[in-house]
Amino acid sequence: MNITEYMTQVGQQARTASRAMARADSATRNRTLLLIAEAVRRDAAVLRAANQLDLDAARAAGMAEAMLDRLALSDKAIDTMVEGLRQIAALSDPIGEISNMKFRPSGIQVGQMRVPLGVIGIIYEARPNVTVDAAGLCIKSGNATILRGGSEAINCNRALARIVAEGLAGAGLPANGVQVVDTTDRAAVGALITMPEYVDVIVPRGGKGLIARLMEEATVPMIKHLDGICHVYIDAKADLTKALPVAFNAKCHRYGTCNTMETLLVARAIAPAVLPQLAELYAAQQVELRADDEAYAILAGYPHLAHASEEDWRTEYLAPVLAVKVVDGIDAAIEHINTYSSRHTDAIITEDYSDALRFLREVDSASVMVNASTRFADGFEYGLGAEIGISNDKLHARGPVGLEGLTSLKYVVFGHGEVRA
Amino acid sequence: MNITEYMTQVGQQARTASRAMARADSATRNRTLLLIAEAVRRDAAVLRAANQLDLDAARAAGMAEAMLDRLALSDKAIDTMVEGLRQIAALSDPIGEISNMKFRPSGIQVGQMRVPLGVIGIIYEARPNVTVDAAGLCIKSGNATILRGGSEAINCNRALARIVAEGLAGAGLPANGVQVVDTTDRAAVGALITMPEYVDVIVPRGGKGLIARLMEEATVPMIKHLDGICHVYIDAKADLTKALPVAFNAKCHRYGTCNTMETLLVARAIAPAVLPQLAELYAAQQVELRADDEAYAILAGYPHLAHASEEDWRTEYLAPVLAVKVVDGIDAAIEHINTYSSRHTDAIITEDYSDALRFLREVDSASVMVNASTRFADGFEYGLGAEIGISNDKLHARGPVGLEGLTSLKYVVFGHGEVRA
Repeated sequence: MNITEYMTQVGQQARTASRAMARADSATRNRTLLLIAEAVRRDAAVLRAANQLDLDAARAAGMAEAMLDRLALSDKAIDTMVEGLRQIAALSDPIGEISNMKFRPSGIQVGQMRVPLGVIGIIYEARPNVTVDAAGLCIKSGNATILRGGSEAINCNRALARIVAEGLAGAGLPANGVQVVDTTDRAAVGALITMPEYVDVIVPRGGKGLIARLMEEATVPMIKHLDGICHVYIDAKADLTKALPVAFNAKCHRYGTCNTMETLLVARAIAPAVLPQLAELYAAQQVELRADDEAYAILAGYPHLAHASEEDWRTEYLAPVLAVKVVDGIDAAIEHINTYSSRHTDAIITEDYSDALRFLREVDSASVMVNASTRFADGFEYGLGAEIGISNDKLHARGPVGLEGLTSLKYVVFGHGEVRA
Repeated sequence: MNITEYMTQVGQQARTASRAMARADSATRNRTLLLIAEAVRRDAAVLRAANQLDLDAARAAGMAEAMLDRLALSDKAIDTMVEGLRQIAALSDPIGEISNMKFRPSGIQVGQMRVPLGVIGIIYEARPNVTVDAAGLCIKSGNATILRGGSEAINCNRALARIVAEGLAGAGLPANGVQVVDTTDRAAVGALITMPEYVDVIVPRGGKGLIARLMEEATVPMIKHLDGICHVYIDAKADLTKALPVAFNAKCHRYGTCNTMETLLVARAIAPAVLPQLAELYAAQQVELRADDEAYAILAGYPHLAHASEEDWRTEYLAPVLAVKVVDGIDAAIEHINTYSSRHTDAIITEDYSDALRFLREVDSASVMVNASTRFADGFEYGLGAEIGISNDKLHARGPVGLEGLTSLKYVVFGHGEVRA
């Protein structure tokens, strides 16, 4: 069987299974999650042995240490997986809710019912824990799932696939409710993202390179973000006891995450007061500052200082590097952000009511914040209970995506024999 | 200037104008709508003269009578346009609503704010009234709009564009808030649907041919439906006093609409009772019935009877033709619908509680109904106040799309200096 035939079969099986998944009641879906959690716990040694095969092969192939780290399935990662499944089981069921039910003059009653999307395709790189996390969210939301993990993790993913299938079967759900693509052939990804008849949405989990490649070819819609060029704007009316810790945390809490600040904007009136104090904090972490002329003059003497170029405003460093710019005020800040932001997360620090409201309303990003660190843009921090990914798109789900993003609303009409006049 | 340059300029102007449109308060947007309504009323003679130029050219070019009908701007059409704008102005403002605002353990408060999508592209065929209807909905929802009407209507659309620009200027909004593409070159459409940097969503209004063509090429997301293959399933437990009028209305109220029934499914137990009575109603309208073997046997003697082929289950007739099939019961009906339906609108006629619930939950269509005619699937009938189109997609807006479908939700975070631990 060639890859196209194989993936067509996987797609058809997913579509068929999606009906049983959508029909399953809350208790059945939650029982499935708990059975998988138990089996992961029971088979921890088996999973580690499978993971060791992957690690040995990856090391022999010369994989970099950072990637090996992501591929490794530690005892702690297994614990986190089990705990994650239990937490998802404990979340309230998004499916079946009917909202806005209203009688209309014609006599019909119209509302919207929350239903599963159908079939979700997840494409991810090395981390094997995504297999179980993503399967858990899709099972909870009544969807069928096709998982395409990195080829480096194939042994561990096969072992996890057996455990997930056992959980589904134990709860009386079809084994094809979650399928792990059992080939390392890259053509499988190309097939998966071009089967809109079988797959309703793709969630890519991985680096910018992977996602940019998928965007080129996909005909199935994706829930995704390409990059996170996040801003903090310190307004003229900022309270420095808030501005300093927030601007420090937004940059230095973690460098490699998509909600990390990459550009700091400071209002001219407050720049001479705030930049030297911030520089002291950044200096302790050896953060390199790429400053525009005005900020450069204020920061003169900072040990890691460089001149910013146009390119810096467009760069997601994912590193201890920060672009810094002095702006006139709120208008220039909003203009800069709407021009250069990746529409992920942007924050203002201010005590000014009108500037706060304008920033919230006019900055066209998935998350906009007042007096809080951009690092809060996260499904858990927002109270979604879990996160399948973050979307920078404006359609469907925007920002951190939890269970609701894996559902759709359909109109339901309760009639009594009404006909249209 | 070539078409690509021209459309890039249109796109950039729209993106710039979209910020002012999004910032405008409710009163300003509503005033714009009322100014446009007044100017349409005042310039009725000018509009009719421009329309006459289009009609003369179209007639000279040999346009079919049905198309000429759609192109014509009658006094009544002008009245309807004016009334439509006033109704949109009277709707409540979807923009700015903040929902689900909750404090989190970290101290931040998180909610979702409804905001305009940004730039909406509308592509439509002959009907000039769409220019004003679509512009009205987009202005109300705080979006900038690019309108690409049919080349047959270019004179009338230019006249309408002047009126809309006058309304925008009168209320202090940028004239580029609504742009009418001022070229009949088809390359303009190709450019419009492949500018995701300037256009957030395309709403195509037109026949299946137009939409299928756009789907091939578009890289901008679309709010659309391709066809409407709608079903009515008469369950074994149906009340015939409801089943007969609903099945008649769903087919015969209007033949050419997307929410018209194209296939009738009847449970075996009730088929001998219901089909002959329905046939009497359909016979009076000379509806052709394409029946499977079992239905054919029951309907023998019906004057317009043919055998259904596999192709009939997949056909949107848009004509007095109906496919008819006898099924075992609810399972077979759901299976048939989920296989052949275009996921637009499907209805069950039943007094059985469990069958009604199963149908609502398991039929995977944008609108699912119990004991009501599929013809109700419509923005006005659902109480949306207005309709920009109907979506068969599961992401973003599904079913009739009103003002809310032209908006997005972004996360807003109210902090007090919180940082992530």
